Amino acid sequence: MAEFAAVDLIRKKRSGASLTDPEIRWLIDSYTSGVVADEQMSAFAMAVFFQSMSPEELSKWTDAMIETGERLDFSSLSQPTADKHSTGGVGDKITLPLGPLVAACGVAVPQLSGRGLGHTGGTLDKLESIPGWQANLSNEQMHAQLEDVGAVVCAAGSGLAPADKKLYSLRDVTGTVEAIPLIASSIMSKKIAEGTAALVLDVKVGSGAFMKTLEQARDLAETMVQLGTAASVKTVALLTDMDTPLGYTAGNAIEVQESLEVLAGGGPADVRELTLALAEEMVAAAGGTADPGTVLASGKPMDVWRRMIAAQGGDPEATLPAAKHSQVITAPETGYLGRLDAMAVGLAAWRLGAGRARKEDPVQAAAGVIWHARPGDQVAAGEPLFTLLTDTPERFEHAQAALTDGFEIVQDTPSLRPLILDRIG
Amino acid sequence: MAEFAAVDLIRKKRSGASLTDPEIRWLIDSYTSGVVADEQMSAFAMAVFFQSMSPEELSKWTDAMIETGERLDFSSLSQPTADKHSTGGVGDKITLPLGPLVAACGVAVPQLSGRGLGHTGGTLDKLESIPGWQANLSNEQMHAQLEDVGAVVCAAGSGLAPADKKLYSLRDVTGTVEAIPLIASSIMSKKIAEGTAALVLDVKVGSGAFMKTLEQARDLAETMVQLGTAASVKTVALLTDMDTPLGYTAGNAIEVQESLEVLAGGGPADVRELTLALAEEMVAAAGGTADPGTVLASGKPMDVWRRMIAAQGGDPEATLPAAKHSQVITAPETGYLGRLDAMAVGLAAWRLGAGRARKEDPVQAAAGVIWHARPGDQVAAGEPLFTLLTDTPERFEHAQAALTDGFEIVQDTPSLRPLILDRIG
Repeated sequence: MAEFAAVDLIRKKRSGASLTDPEIRWLIDSYTSGVVADEQMSAFAMAVFFQSMSPEELSKWTDAMIETGERLDFSSLSQPTADKHSTGGVGDKITLPLGPLVAACGVAVPQLSGRGLGHTGGTLDKLESIPGWQANLSNEQMHAQLEDVGAVVCAAGSGLAPADKKLYSLRDVTGTVEAIPLIASSIMSKKIAEGTAALVLDVKVGSGAFMKTLEQARDLAETMVQLGTAASVKTVALLTDMDTPLGYTAGNAIEVQESLEVLAGGGPADVRELTLALAEEMVAAAGGTADPGTVLASGKPMDVWRRMIAAQGGDPEATLPAAKHSQVITAPETGYLGRLDAMAVGLAAWRLGAGRARKEDPVQAAAGVIWHARPGDQVAAGEPLFTLLTDTPERFEHAQAALTDGFEIVQDTPSLRPLILDRIG
Repeated sequence: MAEFAAVDLIRKKRSGASLTDPEIRWLIDSYTSGVVADEQMSAFAMAVFFQSMSPEELSKWTDAMIETGERLDFSSLSQPTADKHSTGGVGDKITLPLGPLVAACGVAVPQLSGRGLGHTGGTLDKLESIPGWQANLSNEQMHAQLEDVGAVVCAAGSGLAPADKKLYSLRDVTGTVEAIPLIASSIMSKKIAEGTAALVLDVKVGSGAFMKTLEQARDLAETMVQLGTAASVKTVALLTDMDTPLGYTAGNAIEVQESLEVLAGGGPADVRELTLALAEEMVAAAGGTADPGTVLASGKPMDVWRRMIAAQGGDPEATLPAAKHSQVITAPETGYLGRLDAMAVGLAAWRLGAGRARKEDPVQAAAGVIWHARPGDQVAAGEPLFTLLTDTPERFEHAQAALTDGFEIVQDTPSLRPLILDRIG
C-alpha cells in the first residue's frame, strides 16, 4: 500500500482539497491499526467539519471504513431484505412494530441496533425489558432467524466497520461529532456492511433530534441517500418531526407496551402513521407489493413479533416490569397543549433511569415518562399531564425540573407541523 | 479553579465564539497536566485555524501559557533590556552581530535562541561551530553575563512556558502549525516570560520564510505587537524580505565568519543594513540614545563579541572548522542574477548537513552554501556561482538538485524589492 504522512493529508483537507482514493485508504487503515495517532485523526475530523468532503471522496471514505471489517451477506435468503435506521429521537419505538410488520409483508428485516446514550433511547434497551430477551446473536443465528422468522433486532457485532467504532469514540470527545460527512459515513458504513439490499432512513428534525433544522436534516439525508445509492443499496429517507416526542411514552417497558398496541391494531395515531409510512417505503424499496395497512389489520405482524421475541429467548407473554414509584404532574391551567418539547421529555426519562450517562451504566426497565396529552389536545387544570416512573424516587426532583419549561398550555388551537416533513430518494 | 469539559470548549471555539478567561486558564492548565488529551487539543487547534481568536482572548491565552512556567526578571540590571526575534530565514545570522552591537550601545540583550529545523538555520547551531562555546546557561549565569558583558545568546530553558513546548510538538504533527494566533502566542509567550522590557520582531516574508505573503506577515506582526504591548513589553516589528537569503552564506561556521566581517566594519551590505535597522529599533525601544552606526564604527561591538563568546566557554580567536569537501557550481550564462531563491538555498544548505531533519540529529559545523552573487549582480558564464561545502560528499548531488531551479540569469537589470518592507509598532 502507498505510504503517506498524516500531517500532509490533514493539511490537504484543511486547505479544502479532496483526498484521493489511496490517501483515504491509507489514512483509515493506518488509523485503525494505530499508525495514525488519535490527535492526528481528531485534527483531520475538525478540518472535515469546516471543509466537508466531496460526494466521491465521502463514498471512498465510507468504502474504506467498511473494508476494515467484515461484510454480512443475506443474498442467499429466500426473501429480499430491507432495513430502517433512525437518527435518534424521544419515544422512538418505531423499530419494534415495524420489523414484524415488514416481515409479515414478505420482506426480511435484518436490524442491527444500538443502546441509548443521553436523552435518546435505544432499541436494545427497550427490548431488554422483556424477560429473557437476548440482544447478542452470532451471524449464523441472525441468518437462521431471518430465514425462519423474517425479522431480527440484535446488537451490532464489533466486526462491522471497526474503523467507525474507533472514530466515533474519538469524535465524541473532540467536538467533531457534528460534521455531516462523518455522521453520514458512520451510519452508512455499518448499514452497508450489514448487507441489506434496501434501506429506509428516518432522519429526525427538531428540538429532541440531533439535527435541529430542516436544512441540516435534508443535507444529512441527501448525503446518506447518495452513499447508499453509490454502494448499490436502494436508499430512501423520510424527514420526520422530533420537536414533539412520538406516542405517549418514553422509556423502555412502557414503549414496548405502546408498540404492542400498534401491533394489535391500535396505538397512538402518530406511531401508527410513521410505522406504516416507513413500512410502505421498505416494502417498495425491496420490490414487494404487499400493503402494510392491510397486513397490519390481519394480525399477522403480532404473530411475527411473538416468534421474533421467542427466537431470542424472550417470553412474549411475560408481564413487563412495572416501576416501584410513580408521580403525577397535573396541568396548571385549562386550555390546549400548545407544545411538548421532545428534548425536555427525553431528559426527564433519562433522569428517571430509562437512559444512561455513560456506556457502561445500566438502565431501569420500568423507568420513563408517560404524557397524557399531545400538542393540540385539550387539557384541564388539575388533571394529570405527566406520569413519571422510576425505581429510585430520589430521581423525581431532577426529572420534574427537566419538564418545567418543556410544555406550554395555550388558549387557541395551536398550528402543528405534519409528522412527515419530506421524502428524499 | 473552575471546571469545564474540553469538548464544550472545542465546540465553543468551533462555533466562532471567544473563550472566557477561566475557560482559557482551565484548558491550558489541564492540557499541560494531561487532563485534556492531545486529541482534544489538536481538534481545538484546528478550530482556531478556522475561527481564529479575538485579540483579548489571545492575550489571555498567551498569559495562561506563560503562567504554566517561570518568568525571568531583569529589572534589577543596571541597563535596560531589549531582545530581537526573527521568524526564521535563510542566511539569517543577524543575531550574531546584533547582540554585541546593541550591548555596545548600552542596552542589555538577553537572547534566548533555538536550534534550526528544516531549511532555516538556528542561531545556537551557528555559535556552536565556535570551539568550546556552550549554549546552556543557568538563569543566574545568564543574569551575571548580562550585567558583566551586556549580551548573552543561550538556549531557552524548559522552564519557560512549558505549555507552549507541549502544544508546539502537537501542532507539528497535526497540521495546525499555520494558525496565526497560535504562532503569535507561541513566540510571544516565551519572549514575554523571558523578561525583556523591549522586543523587536523581524518578521520574514517570502519564499524562504514561513510567511509567504506580505499580508500574512503583516497579520502575524500586528498580532504579536498587540500581544507584546498588552503585556507591557515595548514591541516593534519590521517586515523584511526573505525571497532572497541574507548575505552570501548559509550554514554554521561560514555564517559566524560573515558576522565577524560585519562586526569588523565590513560584511555584506544587506546584513549590515538589517543589523543596523534592528539595532536602532532596539536601542530606541529600550529608551537609549546611542547611534548604532557610530558605535559599530568604533569597534566596541567586536570587543563585546569576544567577551560574550569567552563568557560561554568559547575561544573567539580559534580557527573555525573548514569543510572537508567543496564543489563549485558555475554560472551557465552571462547576464545579471535575476533571482536567488531563499528556499532553494536553505534546502541545499540543509542537505549538505548544515541543518537537521529531526530534533535529535547533529549538524555539521562546516557545511553550507556560499553564493558569489546576489540578485542584481553581473555574472559571467563559467565563473563560480555557488560553492557547496560538506564533510560528507555523497550529499552534493541532492544539494545541487535543490539549486537547479533556485536562480535565474536575466539580460536586463532586474527590479528588486527593498530589504525592509514595512514597520509595525
